[in-house]
Amino acid sequence: MADLKSMFMKVYDTLKKDLLEDPAFEWSPDSSQWVEKMLDYTVPGGKLNRGLSVVDSLKLLKEEEDLTEDEIFLSSTLGWCIEWLQAYFLVLDDIMDASHTRRGQPCWFRLPKVGMIAVNDGILLRNHIPRMLKKHFRNKDYYVDLLDLFNEVEFQTAHGQMIDLITTLEGEKDLSKYTESLHRRIVQYKTAYYSFYLPVACALLMAGEKLENHIEVQNILVEMGTYFQVQDDYLDCFGDPETIGKIGTDIEDFKCSWLVVKAFQLSNEEQKKLLLENYGKADPGNVAKVKALYHELNLQGVFEEYESKSYEKIITSIEAHPSKAVQAVLKSFLGKIYKRQK
Amino acid sequence: MADLKSMFMKVYDTLKKDLLEDPAFEWSPDSSQWVEKMLDYTVPGGKLNRGLSVVDSLKLLKEEEDLTEDEIFLSSTLGWCIEWLQAYFLVLDDIMDASHTRRGQPCWFRLPKVGMIAVNDGILLRNHIPRMLKKHFRNKDYYVDLLDLFNEVEFQTAHGQMIDLITTLEGEKDLSKYTESLHRRIVQYKTAYYSFYLPVACALLMAGEKLENHIEVQNILVEMGTYFQVQDDYLDCFGDPETIGKIGTDIEDFKCSWLVVKAFQLSNEEQKKLLLENYGKADPGNVAKVKALYHELNLQGVFEEYESKSYEKIITSIEAHPSKAVQAVLKSFLGKIYKRQK
Repeated sequence: MADLKSMFMKVYDTLKKDLLEDPAFEWSPDSSQWVEKMLDYTVPGGKLNRGLSVVDSLKLLKEEEDLTEDEIFLSSTLGWCIEWLQAYFLVLDDIMDASHTRRGQPCWFRLPKVGMIAVNDGILLRNHIPRMLKKHFRNKDYYVDLLDLFNEVEFQTAHGQMIDLITTLEGEKDLSKYTESLHRRIVQYKTAYYSFYLPVACALLMAGEKLENHIEVQNILVEMGTYFQVQDDYLDCFGDPETIGKIGTDIEDFKCSWLVVKAFQLSNEEQKKLLLENYGKADPGNVAKVKALYHELNLQGVFEEYESKSYEKIITSIEAHPSKAVQAVLKSFLGKIYKRQK
Repeated sequence: MADLKSMFMKVYDTLKKDLLEDPAFEWSPDSSQWVEKMLDYTVPGGKLNRGLSVVDSLKLLKEEEDLTEDEIFLSSTLGWCIEWLQAYFLVLDDIMDASHTRRGQPCWFRLPKVGMIAVNDGILLRNHIPRMLKKHFRNKDYYVDLLDLFNEVEFQTAHGQMIDLITTLEGEKDLSKYTESLHRRIVQYKTAYYSFYLPVACALLMAGEKLENHIEVQNILVEMGTYFQVQDDYLDCFGDPETIGKIGTDIEDFKCSWLVVKAFQLSNEEQKKLLLENYGKADPGNVAKVKALYHELNLQGVFEEYESKSYEKIITSIEAHPSKAVQAVLKSFLGKIYKRQK
């Protein structure tokens, strides 16, 4: 595993070097320094789960002990394209949310020399993806499918972000709009496609598969992505801040969290009133009242039931899949997230 | 001409309708209303020169009186993709520059309900382009070349914007960095590729040409785009505000304008000192001193000489081109901008 990660980081260095010598632009020392600093700050500092899972998935799909060097390099490149996509979303999301920290350091746009230039840096990150794809995949049969895939998944993610943004719009703070179906749409589009479906879809293309034959794989992964985000919402309130590495603020931020959706569903009139009066306020007194209601409604128990039902449903779908190799890929994803504490 | 424009606007309506029914996303009334309003506000309100020129160029390349209905629709679609690209850049540039108005109305992000959501709207605009290309060009031989072309030109534009932003960075206000070669790089990457090369490249692909055989066409169009931007810089200071429709603020904004580059080049030590002391300041007294120096250095005469030399050079390159049809396309572009007053 440590091996895999250090190989993956070496690929990062290669890809970065290529980008900084891209012949479509006349580089100067100023401009390559800027881009290099920006990349090192925004791209490789996360857990890299999404990126690494492309390599893992390809291994399982090919049912071979060892991939060739070329397969390792190419699947890592696709993995990095996903990490670049993630970096692009995070740089811009942090600006939109006026966030302060990310991955334990100030957000990129918070650096004094950066500021609003970060908007253009986000665009640069996004533009690096097709450059990497062109350099390494232009001669593959599946090149055009890769381009279409990245375009479609980015489109879906941006639309998920849009519904998230327009429903939390100031002035429209109307909790009854936070329905289970809205929550599912936000999560599915904003997170599930790019975090769960995209890595596997990349591996499927590399393995010579056509994506239109794998709608069921997409459905299962979207279901897993939804389950993952419900866990995230749960841990934001009930997780151990030491373990998850941050202090949750979904209640303060008026987030359309699975918890508030469930709470509203299970509340009587009086409890709904309490929720309306206290949700989305920064004052710790308000937050405490919301948390007390969550306990009163036994949301921990409700979550545990959701978790086991969701797990059962996903396992059943996976085992209905005709290919053992595909089953292995999907089970590997599920294994990584089931009952996670962080 | 009025006919062409109304046909072009009809294509806009069709494209918009398709986007608002894109099956890759589950639409709700809220989300389609938001996107429709955003599109109508940000996309069709410009002069549409870039978009219309794809249709014009295809006509000249095919050397036929009338294009088929299908050719008109498809070339208009590519034209609109360029207008969408432009809208995407403008929405985000206005945020980065903290601008107030655009095309005679408040910038999109200045609308009270929009604010920083405009960052995501810019992303949506960008994401619409590959959706339109996929819907209408997926079965064409040149589909993958179109995707590569749009990706490469966007990459170049974002890098042009980057050098523009990092050289005007607060604190680095050092006029001696504003050289002719920096000015050319900014202009070439930030404006010329997408405004001049991209429309013709789209028409060439539709006409069945391979872009690697048209490097000279690209060079000529980049040269024209540079000339166009020098005119823009000139008109910002010396144009008639009534005619150009805005009051220039390049001096106040410390822009790397062709005028300040030339002024610095032609100045003696004392004049350089005056420039350093007065350039980039909002006070009208400072601005007036800079303008007086421009007059003293006879920048109007210097510009006229640049204009006629540049024209000669471009015409000579055009006439050296082996294809009369390509010559006609290039001359049509040049005719539209030579000695323009707005």
